[in-house]
Amino acid sequence: MTLGVALIGTGFMGKCHAMAWRNVATAFGGTPPRLQVLADAAAPDDLARAWGFARATADWQAAVADPGVDVVSITTPNGLHRAMAEAALRAGKHVWLEKPMALTLADAQAMADLAAAHPGQVTLLGYNYLRSPAFQAARALVADGVIGQPLAFRGVYDEDYSADPTLPWSWRMTHQGGGLGALGDLGCHLVSVMVALMGPVAELTAMTQIAVPTRPSPEGPRAVENEDSALALIRFASGAQGSFATSRVARGRKCRLQWEIHGSNGTLVFDQENMNELWVHRAGDAGFTRHLTGPDQPDFAAFCPAPGHGFGFNEQKVVECRDLIRAIGGGAPCGPDFAAGLTIERIIHAMATSNGRPVTLEAAHEDA
Amino acid sequence: MTLGVALIGTGFMGKCHAMAWRNVATAFGGTPPRLQVLADAAAPDDLARAWGFARATADWQAAVADPGVDVVSITTPNGLHRAMAEAALRAGKHVWLEKPMALTLADAQAMADLAAAHPGQVTLLGYNYLRSPAFQAARALVADGVIGQPLAFRGVYDEDYSADPTLPWSWRMTHQGGGLGALGDLGCHLVSVMVALMGPVAELTAMTQIAVPTRPSPEGPRAVENEDSALALIRFASGAQGSFATSRVARGRKCRLQWEIHGSNGTLVFDQENMNELWVHRAGDAGFTRHLTGPDQPDFAAFCPAPGHGFGFNEQKVVECRDLIRAIGGGAPCGPDFAAGLTIERIIHAMATSNGRPVTLEAAHEDA
Amino acid sequence: MTLGVALIGTGFMGKCHAMAWRNVATAFGGTPPRLQVLADAAAPDDLARAWGFARATADWQAAVADPGVDVVSITTPNGLHRAMAEAALRAGKHVWLEKPMALTLADAQAMADLAAAHPGQVTLLGYNYLRSPAFQAARALVADGVIGQPLAFRGVYDEDYSADPTLPWSWRMTHQGGGLGALGDLGCHLVSVMVALMGPVAELTAMTQIAVPTRPSPEGPRAVENEDSALALIRFASGAQGSFATSRVARGRKCRLQWEIHGSNGTLVFDQENMNELWVHRAGDAGFTRHLTGPDQPDFAAFCPAPGHGFGFNEQKVVECRDLIRAIGGGAPCGPDFAAGLTIERIIHAMATSNGRPVTLEAAHEDA
Amino acid sequence: MTLGVALIGTGFMGKCHAMAWRNVATAFGGTPPRLQVLADAAAPDDLARAWGFARATADWQAAVADPGVDVVSITTPNGLHRAMAEAALRAGKHVWLEKPMALTLADAQAMADLAAAHPGQVTLLGYNYLRSPAFQAARALVADGVIGQPLAFRGVYDEDYSADPTLPWSWRMTHQGGGLGALGDLGCHLVSVMVALMGPVAELTAMTQIAVPTRPSPEGPRAVENEDSALALIRFASGAQGSFATSRVARGRKCRLQWEIHGSNGTLVFDQENMNELWVHRAGDAGFTRHLTGPDQPDFAAFCPAPGHGFGFNEQKVVECRDLIRAIGGGAPCGPDFAAGLTIERIIHAMATSNGRPVTLEAAHEDA
Repeated sequence: MTLGVALIGTGFMGKCHAMAWRNVATAFGGTPPRLQVLADAAAPDDLARAWGFARATADWQAAVADPGVDVVSITTPNGLHRAMAEAALRAGKHVWLEKPMALTLADAQAMADLAAAHPGQVTLLGYNYLRSPAFQAARALVADGVIGQPLAFRGVYDEDYSADPTLPWSWRMTHQGGGLGALGDLGCHLVSVMVALMGPVAELTAMTQIAVPTRPSPEGPRAVENEDSALALIRFASGAQGSFATSRVARGRKCRLQWEIHGSNGTLVFDQENMNELWVHRAGDAGFTRHLTGPDQPDFAAFCPAPGHGFGFNEQKVVECRDLIRAIGGGAPCGPDFAAGLTIERIIHAMATSNGRPVTLEAAHEDA
Repeated sequence: MTLGVALIGTGFMGKCHAMAWRNVATAFGGTPPRLQVLADAAAPDDLARAWGFARATADWQAAVADPGVDVVSITTPNGLHRAMAEAALRAGKHVWLEKPMALTLADAQAMADLAAAHPGQVTLLGYNYLRSPAFQAARALVADGVIGQPLAFRGVYDEDYSADPTLPWSWRMTHQGGGLGALGDLGCHLVSVMVALMGPVAELTAMTQIAVPTRPSPEGPRAVENEDSALALIRFASGAQGSFATSRVARGRKCRLQWEIHGSNGTLVFDQENMNELWVHRAGDAGFTRHLTGPDQPDFAAFCPAPGHGFGFNEQKVVECRDLIRAIGGGAPCGPDFAAGLTIERIIHAMATSNGRPVTLEAAHEDA
Repeated sequence: MTLGVALIGTGFMGKCHAMAWRNVATAFGGTPPRLQVLADAAAPDDLARAWGFARATADWQAAVADPGVDVVSITTPNGLHRAMAEAALRAGKHVWLEKPMALTLADAQAMADLAAAHPGQVTLLGYNYLRSPAFQAARALVADGVIGQPLAFRGVYDEDYSADPTLPWSWRMTHQGGGLGALGDLGCHLVSVMVALMGPVAELTAMTQIAVPTRPSPEGPRAVENEDSALALIRFASGAQGSFATSRVARGRKCRLQWEIHGSNGTLVFDQENMNELWVHRAGDAGFTRHLTGPDQPDFAAFCPAPGHGFGFNEQKVVECRDLIRAIGGGAPCGPDFAAGLTIERIIHAMATSNGRPVTLEAAHEDA
Repeated sequence: MTLGVALIGTGFMGKCHAMAWRNVATAFGGTPPRLQVLADAAAPDDLARAWGFARATADWQAAVADPGVDVVSITTPNGLHRAMAEAALRAGKHVWLEKPMALTLADAQAMADLAAAHPGQVTLLGYNYLRSPAFQAARALVADGVIGQPLAFRGVYDEDYSADPTLPWSWRMTHQGGGLGALGDLGCHLVSVMVALMGPVAELTAMTQIAVPTRPSPEGPRAVENEDSALALIRFASGAQGSFATSRVARGRKCRLQWEIHGSNGTLVFDQENMNELWVHRAGDAGFTRHLTGPDQPDFAAFCPAPGHGFGFNEQKVVECRDLIRAIGGGAPCGPDFAAGLTIERIIHAMATSNGRPVTLEAAHEDA
């Protein structure tokens, strides 16, 4: 069976999805998907041609409804996620949706409910960083007990795209237009990684900060509503503890999704800015060892047989796409699906509203 | 005037004080201090000779009372700090005391009160890491506004000296014998650095963990009472926010006193395991720049005129000793004195007891 | 016009070419090439389908002759390069050939001569590392005089794929089967980088080493003929000097193509194992600054608008493919073409035979 | 017995020797030396007092002749080394001399001859970097066969103290006044390290460069005579090969004495700018492991019982001083003595004159 694909959105992640759909069979084998339709308000024929899609359309609803489409990639602004994902689910399509799920927890809940009502359709959220070979190696080391019992997690995800105070005000900085701020853009990625490594969150206490309270607009200074940064303490259901930090105003940081796990028998350290390195210390080692990614990691091997030759950001997405195709084909389930994604949303919304008070994440346990 | 010195204790920090007293005039000029008496239960004549002290004694009280002694270095276990420091103050001596001040907040309060009653005598707590050239350079960059307004602090101090669960139980793991655990050993250092860079703490929320609840003893497993690790969120009086973490069970970490400050106009990053590097990013820079310590930093220049030639841990203590001597001689005051040390104690004790609830540090403001 | 492509070879670099052909228009726009035929002894229909080629064949000559083919990608063992490249040139096709050009200098010379006789056909050698965004940024910094006049080059390219002495003997370790050893596999890449940054080589002195003289084979130990490592001193035509080293037996090195340039006004440092970092020091800077790749570099921007998000090894090849297509379309010439490739071959063959004596590279000047 | 010390010179290395003499017994125990006399043209009484010397003198010959002096530290400009060392030897004193030995090979030969005629007197050259704990650990790993048979050495020692072309001309840039340039200042250190790790040099080929041919002087531009940088290829007597590079005009480098050894079974990597890190890879390891210096290394333990706490440049000299005292007391011989130092001189002078032609170092074998 050849999978028919609609892709909605042609920005940063739209192009990234396109490259993934184009190369997934080149990397992993199998039948290349049929790139049926590229949907964008501008109906970009040239992009459709360059990206190998059969046609372009300005009408995303038509794209979703296209009977030749089996799966819909949604890479549009967050405020459009719910309507598009729900339309796709109702049309019987599988859904590959960029994170975060939606602007509000209520929206995310509704989407998860609808997905639960369509159990035969696969949903997958685009948490890229779960697919890097180094992360997968780390997850395997934790799962295999190589570092013993995880005791502590320390994680940050910092960038500086909003650090410049002269950056103009935009609707992305409002609750209604942009939902959460750094937590929605960056923090949810860190939660996805944290939960994958450490298991469910039982309780958290968080603080947020708006570092640049107003920004210039044609009508004069306007208030920024969503957080520039957030900090949290975490109690995991396992009994482990963690610290969590994210910022969109951390000068000089570009993709610093950096974490470490202290286990009873070893420590792992990772930084996405050096995404091909995993640092491992096991009890008895003389220090930390730098593991370069290589073909010992199966999803690296699909791209290159030579170690140390550098996996790239976009290739993470090809792996994610492979997982989606496999799940659609009845193979191993992939995640985070909408149910797991809702858990991530609950955690970041709890962080956004904690204001220094502990919040219990009972639901986290149920979903885990 | 030649300063007469008594040194109590001959362990890790005792030897470190001895090397500082021996070399302070070699590095910085002036009259070398007179090393009057070395006090230790074993009355180690050989050490006194090797370290250049005129005599050894088993009687620390005699050492404190010696009329030829002007200043007393106290490097004994924490439970002895209060009695020795108070005796020295009452004998009219200046006091150089290793951190933490005492086992309990009450003890630290009493010591600070007594020091306040002896305003002509200098007190100095041994917070080594405040004296490294890289730290001093960082503090100057913050003070000079090079990174703009400090917005966020992220700090950890991790070691692994207690990570091995087969390490036997010791009295240091009890409240009565050892006071706080990782917070008393390591966390207080991180607080000293944090407060020096960010100013007073207004509020904190913390959690602690005992990773190895019991340890072997001749009488069978015994309970560990004080924390193996602690995490905290910080609200500074300035409005900035911070995260704080310390652990004595972080496998592979040896002296990872690592922090970063996000300012409105730049970022600083430091790790004591590479104590000769300070990483600086200013708005507009293409990335982070690695500043190696060098003779541009005056306290480096006193030791070596060549940049990149490596300042060492012990040399921090020589700088601290110079600061002490200068203050005793009527020059610039040095710190943290007992008053500032009490603020540090309040913060770590607040962390130890927060249990996930916010604690206001009103006193911090007064002392700052 | 849609470019018709034949790809010969389905190994490491064959797959890499396939991914480049698949994604070049997705990344850079334009009309995707028509993937006409995939040639391999096994006539792999499944790979042709997965990689999007119209058909597979076991007959590379038929693939080259296919009238629907405009350009031939050659990714087969080095001993086949000459015959295939010459056939393609004679058939009027453009040629994209993996390095090194051939087993012998005579073969390379013949290939360059034939290419010169077909001036309307583009030839391009697969020197991947010339296309990384960090390298391109470095080349621009040198060209723009940011580091002043280049004085010295220090370069290594080390891997460890032959370090294990129990690795069996293979025909690749003979002159007839494998040509040069580390110089042919790795050293030529380093030469490509060195010449691009420093200009022509005037003279060199080199030494080579066979670290593992014999290797196991079914017939007993057999002699390794080609070098495991090589070292050289370089005099550039510019007057600058350089050191050069390559090894296939450097334990722990995976893709350490590491170089630095000392200029009269600054220094650049790069290591392919961290291919997204370029370290830059200019006179007056406090230290070296780590430049992460990002969308300021146009060929990065084609893949990702977010800095620090990690360019990958395979994406270098997409850039190379774009250069090839542009040159075929009459745009900027691309290189190294066969003439420039011959210069690289002359350099590595001179290194292979220098045996500690100076060798003048007069021809290098002519070709530069 | 208490050793009586004369120190000649009060500059960079003079102060470093003073700190070593002051602290050697504090670190290692034993009787502190008696600091008899500090000799310098300015007869600096204040320095003598601060550094703990009994007296100062402007007459170095008187200092050498002082019957209370057993050992003479010579830290003056290189042109004075021969006269002072010979006077000290003739006066029956042990000699601790900073590198390089002398301005000319003839001088060095004469000094070695005289030392050989005084076999009861210890001579030691100040090759600091042989004493760092990380280097000693590396040497032990090589000696113990942990990395198998050493196959290749790659070493550089770069600084940038002469990189600025506006730096005025000085007598240090002449052969008569300064002897060799970068080779004499820096390269000889790298040779000391290389020979200690790899054994004798059999043959070398080298090139040198004067990057800044003239420099400003009150009389107008004057020619620089000695080399700003040098490169060499090395054949070791063992059959191993090496590359060697040194520069005093490498912008941004401060103390980059960086080397690596490829062994048949592992690799070591070190950089003096991070002097507390040794990187080790053994066959089978997943990557390179960062060994931080710590008390497992005995000479670290003498200074600090806590790993990762940072050994400093000056502490290397305390270790060197301990080795000298031990040898004087009849314990283990220390080195490089004048005979071994002559070998180092022969190597750097061979490099200075090779001009791209191989030079055989027969004498190296005899001395090794």
